Amino acid sequence: MTEKLMDEARAMILRDLHEWTVLHDPDAITRSFSFANFAEAFSFMTRVAFHAEALDHHPDWSNSYNRVVITLTTHDAGGLTEKDIELAKLIDMLAV
Amino acid sequence: MTEKLMDEARAMILRDLHEWTVLHDPDAITRSFSFANFAEAFSFMTRVAFHAEALDHHPDWSNSYNRVVITLTTHDAGGLTEKDIELAKLIDMLAV
Repeated sequence: MTEKLMDEARAMILRDLHEWTVLHDPDAITRSFSFANFAEAFSFMTRVAFHAEALDHHPDWSNSYNRVVITLTTHDAGGLTEKDIELAKLIDMLAV
Repeated sequence: MTEKLMDEARAMILRDLHEWTVLHDPDAITRSFSFANFAEAFSFMTRVAFHAEALDHHPDWSNSYNRVVITLTTHDAGGLTEKDIELAKLIDMLAV
């Protein structure tokens, strides 16, 4: 099982993901995205979906018209793991 | 602008959509769907997305692995309209 991120390694990694907000209970990171319209928002979600499926690590997310809110956590580990960080970095690239 | 559904017409229509739950504040309908896995859930969302875009009426929805929760309301009208009913019926067909 992927291990929960702890202490300094965690702090260092989260500093790189400065557009994400750390949540507690559950331990997770979240980021909101805005697009020109629904089609653009859903196209972004589709790109993320294929990567998430390939990584076998899936986001908790919501969409309302042009807005997408993504929350990442590793349910099995009870908090943030390297899988979340990997997916967050991919999502950041896909959102550009 | 599409008008908000009122009184008997509304009650009659909602009886047909018996798998949906009526919400208040905002006035909306919601339904949860479960699929075999993420790929199946997201495939369903993609089918809904194309129909929503064609109708120019979009769901508020969330997804977590194999679960999809859809809420429908007409923000412009401040509540449920025929557009929501049309989209709900389509979604029910796509979920089969």
